[in-house]
Amino acid sequence: MKDDVIALAQALVQRESVTPEDAGCQQMMNDRLAAVGFNIEPLFFTDTLNTWARKGTQSPHFCFAGHTDVVPTGPEKNWQHPPFSGLIKNGLLHGRGAADMKGSLAAMLVATERFVTKHPDHKGSISFLITSDEEGPFINGTTRVIDTLEARGEKIDMCLVGEPSSRDVLGDVVKNGRRGSLTAYLTVKGVQGHVAYPHLAQNPIHLATPALTELSQTVWDNGNEYFPATSFQISNINGGTGAGNVIPGELEVQFNFRFSTQVTHEQLQQRVNDILRKHNLNYELSWIVNGLPFITEHGPLVDATVNAIKSVTGLTTSLETTGGTSDGRFIAQTGAKVIELGPRNATIHKVDECVSTDDLIALTDIYEQILEQLLA
Amino acid sequence: MKDDVIALAQALVQRESVTPEDAGCQQMMNDRLAAVGFNIEPLFFTDTLNTWARKGTQSPHFCFAGHTDVVPTGPEKNWQHPPFSGLIKNGLLHGRGAADMKGSLAAMLVATERFVTKHPDHKGSISFLITSDEEGPFINGTTRVIDTLEARGEKIDMCLVGEPSSRDVLGDVVKNGRRGSLTAYLTVKGVQGHVAYPHLAQNPIHLATPALTELSQTVWDNGNEYFPATSFQISNINGGTGAGNVIPGELEVQFNFRFSTQVTHEQLQQRVNDILRKHNLNYELSWIVNGLPFITEHGPLVDATVNAIKSVTGLTTSLETTGGTSDGRFIAQTGAKVIELGPRNATIHKVDECVSTDDLIALTDIYEQILEQLLA
Ligand SMILES: [Zn+2]
Ligand SMILES: [Zn+2]
Repeated sequence: MKDDVIALAQALVQRESVTPEDAGCQQMMNDRLAAVGFNIEPLFFTDTLNTWARKGTQSPHFCFAGHTDVVPTGPEKNWQHPPFSGLIKNGLLHGRGAADMKGSLAAMLVATERFVTKHPDHKGSISFLITSDEEGPFINGTTRVIDTLEARGEKIDMCLVGEPSSRDVLGDVVKNGRRGSLTAYLTVKGVQGHVAYPHLAQNPIHLATPALTELSQTVWDNGNEYFPATSFQISNINGGTGAGNVIPGELEVQFNFRFSTQVTHEQLQQRVNDILRKHNLNYELSWIVNGLPFITEHGPLVDATVNAIKSVTGLTTSLETTGGTSDGRFIAQTGAKVIELGPRNATIHKVDECVSTDDLIALTDIYEQILEQLLA
Repeated sequence: MKDDVIALAQALVQRESVTPEDAGCQQMMNDRLAAVGFNIEPLFFTDTLNTWARKGTQSPHFCFAGHTDVVPTGPEKNWQHPPFSGLIKNGLLHGRGAADMKGSLAAMLVATERFVTKHPDHKGSISFLITSDEEGPFINGTTRVIDTLEARGEKIDMCLVGEPSSRDVLGDVVKNGRRGSLTAYLTVKGVQGHVAYPHLAQNPIHLATPALTELSQTVWDNGNEYFPATSFQISNINGGTGAGNVIPGELEVQFNFRFSTQVTHEQLQQRVNDILRKHNLNYELSWIVNGLPFITEHGPLVDATVNAIKSVTGLTTSLETTGGTSDGRFIAQTGAKVIELGPRNATIHKVDECVSTDDLIALTDIYEQILEQLLA
């Protein structure tokens, strides 16, 4: 039985599902889910294949969420083994997506097969929300599946996202929330001119640097029990025509907040505007809320996860909210409790991505234990 | 006789000498200079035709300097009249280069013809230094002609550059010097990272903005009798990979000083380094001295110019050192006294460039008067 998860993970890795391609991964999973009683609903939006699969209609409704797409490999010559070989060597399954997150998909599926076979009359219901758009623009993936479910009043109570959350050893870290992400596009306006005639121009770079300094030095909050302090980073700044003798007319700046639940995105926007106005800037500013912060506090889902990790690995896991965003944020907005638990993330999005086969076997056990505790 | 300058200016405008092309302009001038006793020396460097023409070998040696090349026209449909038509209408000669500086070239040539015809045994000597590389990278133009002259010990005592110096009416402004120009290329180094993990990165934009603010607010000097205060302008700033979630590893900044004779370029470089070091920046900095400042104080050349303008137009001209650089800076470095006097510059480098035919006739008279005062 235990080799099954490795074989499935390997078969998934061998499919070249570079985002937004699914390359047959979902079909492979769906055939097996259908065989154990799941109702399969493929949801194709524009260029993206998604699957909504559910067994049962009762509460509590527990969902496994994940993605079959992978980030590009970069030049294959930089890889020790071909990135879609699925080579297993020295206890490691090699390949793009092995850790993020085809290993998790295999573990979820095998854990579910075992659980429903052992407990044909389990409590509640189990679903799989699988997309092939998590590594891309996330427009036609999880968000649209969630919209579809919301439109017909279908609610997820608890969700486990298979993102590779572990840091040094399997299960050492679980994400029980994520910071919000807010991006701004700022254009500071001056008056273009010739460097030889500065009195006829207004240099937007000179005008903006004091305000940018203040923004980068502001303490936005001090975080809280669950979240680190809100952070501000300028990711892009561009001004100038390329010519050395022209004072540019505009300066463009892109910056991003990762924010805690101590502050709202509306408050951040207000405070940025206050600072820009205080510096008398003539500017345009537009915003994208990439994701709102969410937190899953202690309760059945967190407890089941902590206990399952303890029982399988002996570890006391750490609940964290740091790091990047994931599709968990979209599911959390519906009111579902969301946690993220998957293998070690040391190699994700890098060359020579790989996952330990022992970890995949243990992860399958952990996922099965979580189902046991919540639905047995 | 007076119509001659207009006909010559028109013929020059009709030649499409977009930099570094000369398109036969120099040949047209050289034929006439040779006819009045000039020795013609074409100097072709790489892609650029230059002419050194001289009549006589005695001191004082007076030189007319100018360029036959013009800046590109941009889309011809934006022009009221085709840019190389040389159309004369309502007292204006239209076309690219009419004001910068084919009108001046025609005036120099006709003034010289008249002067040497009237004074076959004039004092000193007269030369023409004509390039077709002033609007381009100025690599194979005036600098290389000057190098050639220096190498054989040929010295210019006084030089009149025909750049369009006039602001509102012909002769209202003469440039008797130019500020220095110093350009810097600054790279501020940080540590690249993900915006979600700012503690693992060092944002070079955040590190640099306080120093850039200090540079833009520093008083470098207060100018002097001849020069306005030294000015500092950031012309280009670029940082970021384009991605919104990446903290860039480097920030690139280009800035320029226009500096007076109150400060040297070495002092400016030292003070910039002091400020960058004070802000603890890790940086690389390279410099280009585009031109050193020069000043032509009162003396025979300035006096002759002031008097000639007064005598022809009735105006008391203003001696200024503001504005951009010109090839005058290269000639001044040899120790020559240099002034710049030409028609109004309102339309130069723009669509619908034009010059007043009356102004060209008066400019010819002024140039001739200058020769009279210096060499008759
Ligand atoms: Zn992922
Ligand atoms: Zn010019």
